[in-house]
Amino acid sequence: MSNFNIDREDLIDLYKRIRRSSIEICRPLQTEDYVVQPADQVSPPKWHLGHTTWFFETFILKQFVKGYREFDPNYNYVFNSYYESVGTRVLRTDRGNLSRPTAGDVMRYRVNVDSDMFEFLNGEMEEHVKELIILGLNHEEQHQELLMSDIKYILGHNPLFPPYLKDYRSPRIATDRNEKYLHYQNGNNEAYKYRSTGEFKTENEFLNKNIKKQEGIYEIGATGVGFHWDNEMGRHKVYLEEYSIAPRLVTNGEYLQFMADGGYKDFRYWHAQGWEWVNKENISSPLYWHMMDNGWNTYTFRGIEKLDLNEAVAHVSYFEAYAYAQYAGKRLPTEFEWEAASEQFHWGLRWEWTESAYLPYPRFKKAAGAIGEYNGKFMVGQQVLRGGSEVTPPGHSRKTYRNFFQPEQRWQFTGIRLVEN
Amino acid sequence: MSNFNIDREDLIDLYKRIRRSSIEICRPLQTEDYVVQPADQVSPPKWHLGHTTWFFETFILKQFVKGYREFDPNYNYVFNSYYESVGTRVLRTDRGNLSRPTAGDVMRYRVNVDSDMFEFLNGEMEEHVKELIILGLNHEEQHQELLMSDIKYILGHNPLFPPYLKDYRSPRIATDRNEKYLHYQNGNNEAYKYRSTGEFKTENEFLNKNIKKQEGIYEIGATGVGFHWDNEMGRHKVYLEEYSIAPRLVTNGEYLQFMADGGYKDFRYWHAQGWEWVNKENISSPLYWHMMDNGWNTYTFRGIEKLDLNEAVAHVSYFEAYAYAQYAGKRLPTEFEWEAASEQFHWGLRWEWTESAYLPYPRFKKAAGAIGEYNGKFMVGQQVLRGGSEVTPPGHSRKTYRNFFQPEQRWQFTGIRLVEN
Amino acid sequence: MSNFNIDREDLIDLYKRIRRSSIEICRPLQTEDYVVQPADQVSPPKWHLGHTTWFFETFILKQFVKGYREFDPNYNYVFNSYYESVGTRVLRTDRGNLSRPTAGDVMRYRVNVDSDMFEFLNGEMEEHVKELIILGLNHEEQHQELLMSDIKYILGHNPLFPPYLKDYRSPRIATDRNEKYLHYQNGNNEAYKYRSTGEFKTENEFLNKNIKKQEGIYEIGATGVGFHWDNEMGRHKVYLEEYSIAPRLVTNGEYLQFMADGGYKDFRYWHAQGWEWVNKENISSPLYWHMMDNGWNTYTFRGIEKLDLNEAVAHVSYFEAYAYAQYAGKRLPTEFEWEAASEQFHWGLRWEWTESAYLPYPRFKKAAGAIGEYNGKFMVGQQVLRGGSEVTPPGHSRKTYRNFFQPEQRWQFTGIRLVEN
Amino acid sequence: MSNFNIDREDLIDLYKRIRRSSIEICRPLQTEDYVVQPADQVSPPKWHLGHTTWFFETFILKQFVKGYREFDPNYNYVFNSYYESVGTRVLRTDRGNLSRPTAGDVMRYRVNVDSDMFEFLNGEMEEHVKELIILGLNHEEQHQELLMSDIKYILGHNPLFPPYLKDYRSPRIATDRNEKYLHYQNGNNEAYKYRSTGEFKTENEFLNKNIKKQEGIYEIGATGVGFHWDNEMGRHKVYLEEYSIAPRLVTNGEYLQFMADGGYKDFRYWHAQGWEWVNKENISSPLYWHMMDNGWNTYTFRGIEKLDLNEAVAHVSYFEAYAYAQYAGKRLPTEFEWEAASEQFHWGLRWEWTESAYLPYPRFKKAAGAIGEYNGKFMVGQQVLRGGSEVTPPGHSRKTYRNFFQPEQRWQFTGIRLVEN
Repeated sequence: MSNFNIDREDLIDLYKRIRRSSIEICRPLQTEDYVVQPADQVSPPKWHLGHTTWFFETFILKQFVKGYREFDPNYNYVFNSYYESVGTRVLRTDRGNLSRPTAGDVMRYRVNVDSDMFEFLNGEMEEHVKELIILGLNHEEQHQELLMSDIKYILGHNPLFPPYLKDYRSPRIATDRNEKYLHYQNGNNEAYKYRSTGEFKTENEFLNKNIKKQEGIYEIGATGVGFHWDNEMGRHKVYLEEYSIAPRLVTNGEYLQFMADGGYKDFRYWHAQGWEWVNKENISSPLYWHMMDNGWNTYTFRGIEKLDLNEAVAHVSYFEAYAYAQYAGKRLPTEFEWEAASEQFHWGLRWEWTESAYLPYPRFKKAAGAIGEYNGKFMVGQQVLRGGSEVTPPGHSRKTYRNFFQPEQRWQFTGIRLVEN
Repeated sequence: MSNFNIDREDLIDLYKRIRRSSIEICRPLQTEDYVVQPADQVSPPKWHLGHTTWFFETFILKQFVKGYREFDPNYNYVFNSYYESVGTRVLRTDRGNLSRPTAGDVMRYRVNVDSDMFEFLNGEMEEHVKELIILGLNHEEQHQELLMSDIKYILGHNPLFPPYLKDYRSPRIATDRNEKYLHYQNGNNEAYKYRSTGEFKTENEFLNKNIKKQEGIYEIGATGVGFHWDNEMGRHKVYLEEYSIAPRLVTNGEYLQFMADGGYKDFRYWHAQGWEWVNKENISSPLYWHMMDNGWNTYTFRGIEKLDLNEAVAHVSYFEAYAYAQYAGKRLPTEFEWEAASEQFHWGLRWEWTESAYLPYPRFKKAAGAIGEYNGKFMVGQQVLRGGSEVTPPGHSRKTYRNFFQPEQRWQFTGIRLVEN
Repeated sequence: MSNFNIDREDLIDLYKRIRRSSIEICRPLQTEDYVVQPADQVSPPKWHLGHTTWFFETFILKQFVKGYREFDPNYNYVFNSYYESVGTRVLRTDRGNLSRPTAGDVMRYRVNVDSDMFEFLNGEMEEHVKELIILGLNHEEQHQELLMSDIKYILGHNPLFPPYLKDYRSPRIATDRNEKYLHYQNGNNEAYKYRSTGEFKTENEFLNKNIKKQEGIYEIGATGVGFHWDNEMGRHKVYLEEYSIAPRLVTNGEYLQFMADGGYKDFRYWHAQGWEWVNKENISSPLYWHMMDNGWNTYTFRGIEKLDLNEAVAHVSYFEAYAYAQYAGKRLPTEFEWEAASEQFHWGLRWEWTESAYLPYPRFKKAAGAIGEYNGKFMVGQQVLRGGSEVTPPGHSRKTYRNFFQPEQRWQFTGIRLVEN
Repeated sequence: MSNFNIDREDLIDLYKRIRRSSIEICRPLQTEDYVVQPADQVSPPKWHLGHTTWFFETFILKQFVKGYREFDPNYNYVFNSYYESVGTRVLRTDRGNLSRPTAGDVMRYRVNVDSDMFEFLNGEMEEHVKELIILGLNHEEQHQELLMSDIKYILGHNPLFPPYLKDYRSPRIATDRNEKYLHYQNGNNEAYKYRSTGEFKTENEFLNKNIKKQEGIYEIGATGVGFHWDNEMGRHKVYLEEYSIAPRLVTNGEYLQFMADGGYKDFRYWHAQGWEWVNKENISSPLYWHMMDNGWNTYTFRGIEKLDLNEAVAHVSYFEAYAYAQYAGKRLPTEFEWEAASEQFHWGLRWEWTESAYLPYPRFKKAAGAIGEYNGKFMVGQQVLRGGSEVTPPGHSRKTYRNFFQPEQRWQFTGIRLVEN
């Protein structure tokens, strides 16, 4: 996916760290939590653990280790996600119907594949194989984020509302709750550093003053240093008109005002398709919000909690983000506007919906073989999100990163940033 | 549900035996197998274990134990099956989306409720309460049969085809495989006794000679001795014309001939609705049959096995049973014909589809309260099955028993008996 | 279908009268009304006119007229209803998508086929051919009733509520509106005769006194004199317990009381499947009822009219009929109870839902060939209705007639008669 | 929608010409053809005629004519398409269920509204009202194109395949069939003029030589002269990389080669969503193509005809256009590339799918009131098409025009132009 240098030891360390991290994420789960699929877009945790392992078995071990024998030939059928090139597979919607392989079987699968991978990593390999492994690790990081959102969905849609971890703290959110909404990640500057400067007041003012960008040509896309996906490549020029972009995300409190002002009942704010979605699915608040005796609550990884009005709103669909912007008399940024201004604001708490549809950049070419199915075939009917979220693995964010989902999806940690001309 | 005497000790023993039996059935399962619901009509095993416990908690402990405190108030929502009288509940199709309560939680629930039940059973109780408990135990036996068919569905639809028990033997099927298809249960006469008589040849002839019944009035329905469901009550006269009924069930071999003769491709054998079902669902054999390199195989509790041509065909829908009868130039018995002749043939291996729709007997009255929702509200659009199956708990069969399912269902151990005038 | 004698002249007269009657029914329509299909179960009027013609062309002319040339070979595809034996056909749900053949084309088709039929009728023919023609005429009478209910559906579901005929009067309902609900047809006794006796008071009392029937054996089914369908044949004995049946139908006023008492909101009155239907389809009154400023109104062939409380309730599903009976503390008659008592009450205003599923009578055999598809293949999942309705062609009713529909259907003129033990 | 001058007489002439044209289009129809809706996206011709009339009644007469009385208050419900601001309406999918108002009623409606409009047009009016009228006329022209595609769908999906006009000739396609595929409209240069030059050979070469465009900034969008839709406004700069675009469309013959090479069977050419569509809907050729005894045929307005290999392929979805481009090793143009090069090639025969999603231009603002619902609310999940088609009303095309449809739609006259870097 790009040119970069990494020596053997570092690669082994990276492999160990990322592979271990997937297991860490699942540690608080009960066995039963590994199995279920309460919505089509959610996958059972044991499926994620198996699928990321299958990736290394299929694209590394089976390709480059002579005489490699599959752990179980049936697993190709079970753990293939969508690679038509690699044979038939369990229907996505049927993943939650499979009690076998068990979580234990999957753990044994991981241990075996990892063991073979370590042996392989200690040998010689060509640069393009190294690149494939790094791609596999980035792929696993994507699934770590999905694991977090799927686990939240599984537990947050259970009538018992069990916590994931009673004392869960997002690694990216400060512990001093009064200051929390201020703390966005900014590239390599860690959030906590920023808080320690004591420039609280100054910053607060800054957070309510839009960032202005001049009309002109901007360069968009990955520069080719470090890892990036094929969909970020094709660095190219875009011409942008003058715009000003908000330095912070829309908060729960602001979104609640939209609800109080009848936002979900007024078709004028919505796309036709969004209006249909609101009415058919009976949508009247973000996902995980529950009106209870004591007012609005929300399900978090710690269980049900009172809604924090200062927090950045999360779990809204593109339809809702768009409607909120219409209500606010503003609009969402295009992905180009977002990227061009991204060094001037803190980001990384929410995947930020953009006004841009997910389309190929100039000179986009799908890779040959199964890896070519990674991104290009989804470039229709989806919307781009930029930034990253509180459950994005550290180091997996960058300003050129293009996430994408269907406009009605909201089980990811999605949020809203506004822009105006 | 009827008049019967049982003393305290016997009731406690019965309660212990039946409650333990549900756990025994699940013993070979992995934790993950308790959770999934691969089809709408299938329930996760842990749901069955919880629901049967909820029954005793809701209809006995909460009604008759002063100051009883629910184990968990959320469980009413989770484990109510269809009792509108007892409040809202998880949608049937969502049972497999719940990882919590875990199988372990459900076991704790059982232990707690059982402990309270033992205390209660040791005290004084009125006759109608005793009847309710016996109803609850019969209810649990029904769920034991469902557990067996649901487990078969869960494992038999897994691409890995895991066995339930590698050396599983149906308690009702003889171990000498050559003689197996002869051995039907006959009321109180255990199958193995019959086999030990050595009257093999005689019997074999008998099995190919229809049983003739004369025209006239027959009495149908439960006599009021021993337990029976409300839908069996209302013993009444029916007038039957002369008929002759087969002493044995249709075998796999015979059914295979129907398939070879194009049975699934010839609309003339099918109801219009059955023909639609065959084409829409792409049905071309009974459930669990798989054409493999070595010919026809079938999934059993022991895993995939070669199809035994002498065995009674199982897992056919009413549509298929009807089509087979049309093909054979015969018909299915009405439930009255079945009951009137039932003492003259062996039954109990398969639930036998009848030509009768599930309708109320004369003087049928629904019981007051939630218990009244047990049978009556399903008396439309379903077909009666008679007999019992190899997974029916011993002692839960009787000739007046009326089972019922939608005509397309076939995940139960259903079979075919023919009749002609 | 049975033995009966009819001479050539009478057969020609019958053919003329019945064929003309279909055209008469459509006379008040606009061309556009011939085309639409606002619900799956409704067929466009021009389809009925074509299909009944296709029946004579396919089963008489093409079979028995040497060298007969089809009017248009495509019409077999367009006008075949469900006869698998006669080739592929337009999907039932697509009938309303076809603008061609036009209503004019269909009229030309009728004229041509009738002309060939007259020639054929004037020649010699075997008895079984004559029987087929009489079956075709009875088939056309069935479609005349469907034409009436489909036309009512087409106009009654149009937001403009156009009348069919501003001064429409049902041939079976008296013109003196105060007496209307008393006037049921009784076999050969015309309703007006009954009214003319002046025994109004006596009769009124009679109408509120149930008819008692003694326990015992009753003979059910057609005797073989005159025309009857294969599903009525197999005259046989049934044993009935003592019952008493209402001499009149449930009225709109009584049904309104059920609604006022929360009938549609109380699950206890409903089958599980009926309760699901009520909630999913948002049912809260019979079809064609509209709450307007001035109270309850109903769409009739004359347009929107104030609901007549004394009229027999119409357009209720089996689910509703059953729920009403549950509410009233009574039940619906079985089809056998209905037939056994039918000479003692007036009937013919409404198709009366019975508690009986549509099942074969003893010795039922499907006829060979396409005609065999007429009734037998529908004998699952449907409910029997007895009697006839105000839009049943005169002479098409008899006490052994078995009509049948799915339990949720209510676009026919269906009603409720109660029974109790 | 923009600044333009038109005097009263010209406006009246324009109104007359365009309103008459809608009637002309329907002249070859039978009454029944006005009524049906064989697919959700198709509207009955009488609905188009009523809806375009309702537009003038609702947005002109009811707004600006004092004391105007609606022709029929129910028509607002019947003929409103999607304007939430203007009240409830018939569901789009139910338009084909309405036999009333009849085609004759709709004609009377048109005559009445036109008569009132003529009176109004002869009076004084403000500029913005004039603009609204011109918008209504452009709206009617859009429906004229829809009328043509809907009529083709209605007749082309009838099993009798009736012609629309036996001697139909597209006004934009030359009569000399051998040259036909060369003749694209080029702005104001009529196609026939081009053919008359006799430069056949030269042109033919030209048609196989791509047009090169240099890297740089291009201006996109309407200049504000003449009528244009709100979605074309916001003329703005885009930065394009070098590209070369085909001067002609992909032909039937070329598309047939894609089919012969297994294009519909090879997932690699398709979007994931397109691949699902192909398999679920069983797509294996463009719409209206039929494999018959004599090879490939296609339904045209003249009836079934042998496929002309030299004609530009029509009736393909975006999914198919994209797959063809992948197969050809090229890609579809973005809408910006298309517009920037559009003066250098002939266009107007097919709506050309672009790679661009339908998104707002910079500074896009929805108009206030119902007119604001025209375009903006559809800006999600749709793909832009550029150009125009052989059934686009003359004068309704321009190079900045942005048409848009869901990626699976193909009942419009859609085609494929290729581009490469």
